[in-house]
Amino acid sequence: MTQSGMFDYSNLFASNAPTSTRSENLHAKYDFAVAYPDPDTLPLNELIDSLKIAIDREGRDLAYYPSPLGLPALRQLVSDKLARDRDIHVPAEDIVLTSGSGEAILMLIQALTNPGDVVLTEEYVYSGTLRQMKLFGSDVRSVPCDDDGLIPEALEDVIRKAESENKPIKYLYTIPCFQNPLGWTMSLDRRKNILEITRSHGIPILEDDCYVDLRFEGEDITSIHSLDDTGQVMYVGSFSKIVAPGMRLGYLVAPQEVRQRALSFKAGAANQFAALAVQEYLSSHLYSHIDDHNQALRLKRDAMVSALGENFGDAAEWTVPSGGLYIWMTMPEGTDLAAFQQQAFDEGVGYQNGTMFSPEGTGANCARLCFGHPDTKTITDGIAELANIMGRHGIIK
Amino acid sequence: MTQSGMFDYSNLFASNAPTSTRSENLHAKYDFAVAYPDPDTLPLNELIDSLKIAIDREGRDLAYYPSPLGLPALRQLVSDKLARDRDIHVPAEDIVLTSGSGEAILMLIQALTNPGDVVLTEEYVYSGTLRQMKLFGSDVRSVPCDDDGLIPEALEDVIRKAESENKPIKYLYTIPCFQNPLGWTMSLDRRKNILEITRSHGIPILEDDCYVDLRFEGEDITSIHSLDDTGQVMYVGSFSKIVAPGMRLGYLVAPQEVRQRALSFKAGAANQFAALAVQEYLSSHLYSHIDDHNQALRLKRDAMVSALGENFGDAAEWTVPSGGLYIWMTMPEGTDLAAFQQQAFDEGVGYQNGTMFSPEGTGANCARLCFGHPDTKTITDGIAELANIMGRHGIIK
Repeated sequence: MTQSGMFDYSNLFASNAPTSTRSENLHAKYDFAVAYPDPDTLPLNELIDSLKIAIDREGRDLAYYPSPLGLPALRQLVSDKLARDRDIHVPAEDIVLTSGSGEAILMLIQALTNPGDVVLTEEYVYSGTLRQMKLFGSDVRSVPCDDDGLIPEALEDVIRKAESENKPIKYLYTIPCFQNPLGWTMSLDRRKNILEITRSHGIPILEDDCYVDLRFEGEDITSIHSLDDTGQVMYVGSFSKIVAPGMRLGYLVAPQEVRQRALSFKAGAANQFAALAVQEYLSSHLYSHIDDHNQALRLKRDAMVSALGENFGDAAEWTVPSGGLYIWMTMPEGTDLAAFQQQAFDEGVGYQNGTMFSPEGTGANCARLCFGHPDTKTITDGIAELANIMGRHGIIK
Repeated sequence: MTQSGMFDYSNLFASNAPTSTRSENLHAKYDFAVAYPDPDTLPLNELIDSLKIAIDREGRDLAYYPSPLGLPALRQLVSDKLARDRDIHVPAEDIVLTSGSGEAILMLIQALTNPGDVVLTEEYVYSGTLRQMKLFGSDVRSVPCDDDGLIPEALEDVIRKAESENKPIKYLYTIPCFQNPLGWTMSLDRRKNILEITRSHGIPILEDDCYVDLRFEGEDITSIHSLDDTGQVMYVGSFSKIVAPGMRLGYLVAPQEVRQRALSFKAGAANQFAALAVQEYLSSHLYSHIDDHNQALRLKRDAMVSALGENFGDAAEWTVPSGGLYIWMTMPEGTDLAAFQQQAFDEGVGYQNGTMFSPEGTGANCARLCFGHPDTKTITDGIAELANIMGRHGIIK
């Protein structure tokens, strides 16, 4: 008991349990902070109609606790899709449905890392994944990238350094398509090169392909998984981007010995109710829905690129991605978009600065600007407003 | 690389990652193994109608990643229900929606235990929770029980023994209503007594109340949480039993410092799609649906009790629970229902033997028989068949 009369938990917590600062995602008037998809293309009525069909057929099974692997019919749909779109050939029994790709990654982190183990990432990496890696004590080391993805020589340097310290390297985590937050897609040559380098050092690859369906121009590049026939590549994907984040459905493909261990850390099966709706809906609408969504995204990207050109001119550089939900903006060295982020939010424009994505906390002169959720007019107005705010505060001279 | 040419993961796994043996729940012809609710009272059409209303109102928000706490309206419903039914008074902001109560327990285990820490449970405890505790290295110690619940003197003995070994005791886990698998409900005096003993030793209580709504006779006993005003009690509940397991929705109530740490270990928010349907449905149907379900359960319990009397007579003893989904059967010492379980399954009757619920692996002469899912005729026939099979194999002399 503490003096206040309240029960004292202070000596009871696990040594790795942080005092979490996970917070709600607050929305600025112009919200470019979070990578949400387009709300106008959400197939809401179609999902309900699909759910009705699926429930009429097999709704009584909701009284059962689902298999820990998740709804078999949706696993079969994933198996078919991966074969068709990513040249990945795995049976439905080898696929685990998860609560978003985030749960899949969390399971793999727990299956593979002890505190202090080294894991490798790209120069900037999705902040949620970074948080999960650090929660379990990973020593996260980033590898420099260029517009084609991870730089092979840099990867070898980082690996050699960790090896010289006798640190076990557990995996390389990569988002090779529309990298979050950088936006590039890794070239085929780089994929082969990276695979070869990591293989020679006994390091598996965790390929996070959750944005791959959001391509609105250019040609697909095959998955890293498809270039390997030794089981070196673990693969995760998601329906959050092509159906809706609120459906919380993703999936995991990995060799049996990895999959079984990862499954130990799973909190029950993926939501059966959502899985029934998504499976029935996608069984007939998969590609038409992706096309609709991507056409909307392309217009939004174009609107953001135009607005950046009109309002920022020479004050910044930015990527022009062929897919995905975000643009990476770089301002001159010394610009502190980290310190300015709250001020911009308070004045109506949300973004996430580079330090949120950097294992080493660098990148204060960079920001990720997401264009998936706002409509084109909001994008145009919001980027102009961001430039105004930055001008008023002397960020843009 | 191994000799087979396949990538070698053997040195890459986390030290606590087991080679999981989590398996599908297979259904025997007469399936008394798993605690499923009644499928005939699943409100399938009502859930779809409710989902349609909720989606029309706020479906566009599915494009957002939900708050990690889960859908606010469903948290408010939980807050109202807990105040009304369990005398627990917490605002919606202090409630976290989880993927079933299993995820809530998994989060708390991770927030509170280092490998080797002692946790206390009842003499037999739900096998899924036991698996989770052991996964994170807990030293699980059981406390003897009688028909009123945990025996206070026995609890003190177990605590003193751990203290004499200088082992930190992190929490007492209890299912005070319709204990799984034993079926009893802890008396009010015992609740007060247990609370006092644990408080004097600085041990918090994790109260798992996920069967409380399944009372079909007798009077409710107030929650342990309501008897405490110091924050000593963490509380979890579930919609799996009163709506459907496949909805995967539960909740967690705990003091802020515990809740925040537990939230770190959560894999994304609870499913928003399922939460919308459940909130809308329960906002008008909560108690009428519970009544329908419980009337069905009472008939099933009665059918199982009758069938046990007719077919087992003096060969076994069994509980007659006032709620919940299972009966606990005890046969004479020396009977090995653990060894016999697979044979019975192969011949058409599923049950779970006592050793699956025992931290110490005892209880081979006991079995949990679930009556929630099969209809009354199937229960009657299945218990007769179980007695037949046992007779043929000499288990019943």
